[in-house]
Amino acid sequence: MRKRLDSMQTIIFDKIALIGIGLIGSSLARVIRREGLARHLAIATRSSETLEQAHHLDLGDSYTTSNAEAVRDADLVIASVPVGTSESVARDIAGDLKEGAIVTDVGSTKGSVIEQMRPHLPSHVHFIPGHPIAGTERSGPDAGFAELFEGRWCILTPLEGTDADAMARLAAFWRACGSDVDSMDPVHHDMVLAMVSHLPHLIAYNIVGTADDLETVTKSEVIKYSASGFRDFTRLAASDPTMWRDVCLHNKDAILEMLARFSEDLASLQRAIRWGDGDKLFDLFNRTRAIRRSIIEAGQDVDVPDFGRQAGKAPAE
Amino acid sequence: MRKRLDSMQTIIFDKIALIGIGLIGSSLARVIRREGLARHLAIATRSSETLEQAHHLDLGDSYTTSNAEAVRDADLVIASVPVGTSESVARDIAGDLKEGAIVTDVGSTKGSVIEQMRPHLPSHVHFIPGHPIAGTERSGPDAGFAELFEGRWCILTPLEGTDADAMARLAAFWRACGSDVDSMDPVHHDMVLAMVSHLPHLIAYNIVGTADDLETVTKSEVIKYSASGFRDFTRLAASDPTMWRDVCLHNKDAILEMLARFSEDLASLQRAIRWGDGDKLFDLFNRTRAIRRSIIEAGQDVDVPDFGRQAGKAPAE
Repeated sequence: MRKRLDSMQTIIFDKIALIGIGLIGSSLARVIRREGLARHLAIATRSSETLEQAHHLDLGDSYTTSNAEAVRDADLVIASVPVGTSESVARDIAGDLKEGAIVTDVGSTKGSVIEQMRPHLPSHVHFIPGHPIAGTERSGPDAGFAELFEGRWCILTPLEGTDADAMARLAAFWRACGSDVDSMDPVHHDMVLAMVSHLPHLIAYNIVGTADDLETVTKSEVIKYSASGFRDFTRLAASDPTMWRDVCLHNKDAILEMLARFSEDLASLQRAIRWGDGDKLFDLFNRTRAIRRSIIEAGQDVDVPDFGRQAGKAPAE
Repeated sequence: MRKRLDSMQTIIFDKIALIGIGLIGSSLARVIRREGLARHLAIATRSSETLEQAHHLDLGDSYTTSNAEAVRDADLVIASVPVGTSESVARDIAGDLKEGAIVTDVGSTKGSVIEQMRPHLPSHVHFIPGHPIAGTERSGPDAGFAELFEGRWCILTPLEGTDADAMARLAAFWRACGSDVDSMDPVHHDMVLAMVSHLPHLIAYNIVGTADDLETVTKSEVIKYSASGFRDFTRLAASDPTMWRDVCLHNKDAILEMLARFSEDLASLQRAIRWGDGDKLFDLFNRTRAIRRSIIEAGQDVDVPDFGRQAGKAPAE
């Protein structure tokens, strides 16, 4: 299901500025350079230590701890920061943005990012929020890789009156990174992501916390026997805590709605267990198989048992 | 962390009878033959279609739909069936067990299996319940593979007065299959497994059910954007529904206890989101990372990002 990229890509932007160089930022840097999507790639991050790391990894053409400096003359500005810092990024860059520049982001929530950034951005730039649906549990400049976006979706949430040409150029950029591109209303985006991403992370963090707190089962037992299911949750629960704190604080309503539905369903499942309602349990456990099958068919997960952990051992499908 | 097996294993049992030939049973059959752990391997399953499949895969030396026939003259009998059918298996085999035979099982709950089987088994056999902590989301005779148990734990839950020699022989058998062996009180086993295995499966089934029922987010959206977290849960939720219905019905008390703790913690997390308690969220999201690190260090999960789905793309640790 991976898309093959043309080996010869044309330059899409003269200068791209990346603000933030974590997992997503550094993956973008790598694919931008591999595909030659910019003549100049400027990298900005507030931590001089992280900047040094990015420099050492040779991720860009120029490096600065000043967001304002990085965005000067940039045709495309991509903020890849925890969503809670979006407003301060917008403030930093507002006065130095080139006329006609495209400003986008990669944040996991869109309503809040729009609320934080839009009031500060000048009217002479095209602000088109975005969200690539890709990632791993690792973070930092060394966690990125150029293939992260291949075969994944990138959702753009353009505001009313967005310039069609700017929208097309940003979509072309993401396609050149290997993504498929969708466009969606920001409110709907936040609802969809609350279900497919934010709730799963919260549940994963929660169950790992519950296990960590048990006094009847030792931590050593949890670890030794985790291959029976628990370990699957620990991956998401190892994700970046700052990023996920910000997601929770900035998509509150949609997350609370999904949490309420989940808890309601769980109470009903609990009742079925208490009263020994085997048919109800079987019905639920049986219908959930189909979704995995569809995800594999859509190329959104690997078609091998155990996520391929047993690669070379277990029979392939 | 994988154990290397000696290439020359001695025969541990003259005849082994496998009752049930699903994922675990067929994996046992494969490793028994590869390691030469029995002179004769008898396979029994109630479905003639499954038996035919096992025969076609050449998993054993003899095949029968009669459990009683399979166990005649067997030195080791292993029931690999959904835990809800343990009693009927015990009834089937009780009259045909050889004097001194070891009878064991691989069920995910131990208290209930003991309750179901012990009253029917004759006093001249050694009944030693067991549970290999290994599996994938696939089921059936073709889903098994000889390496399934390598580096995993097998928990034995011997009853009072269990013969030390029989216990040692069964432990040697599991070690020859690649497992490490632990022994534990059955009640404690059921508590531990409720946390590390049963609760994770229930949570996974539940969240997939919640997503399936949403009217505000389409199924197509859930599938397309599942790489943002949701897909991790769909693996466990694709597990065998009969097996998991039986687990829920047969480890009720421990599961309800763990569910209650999980829900309590989730309510507290929900409150932190509602009131914007960023510090509390950060603290939880930060401490859960350590458990994954310990699981990887213990060799119970792979040390690559994204479970190795991105193998060859993402940088290794």
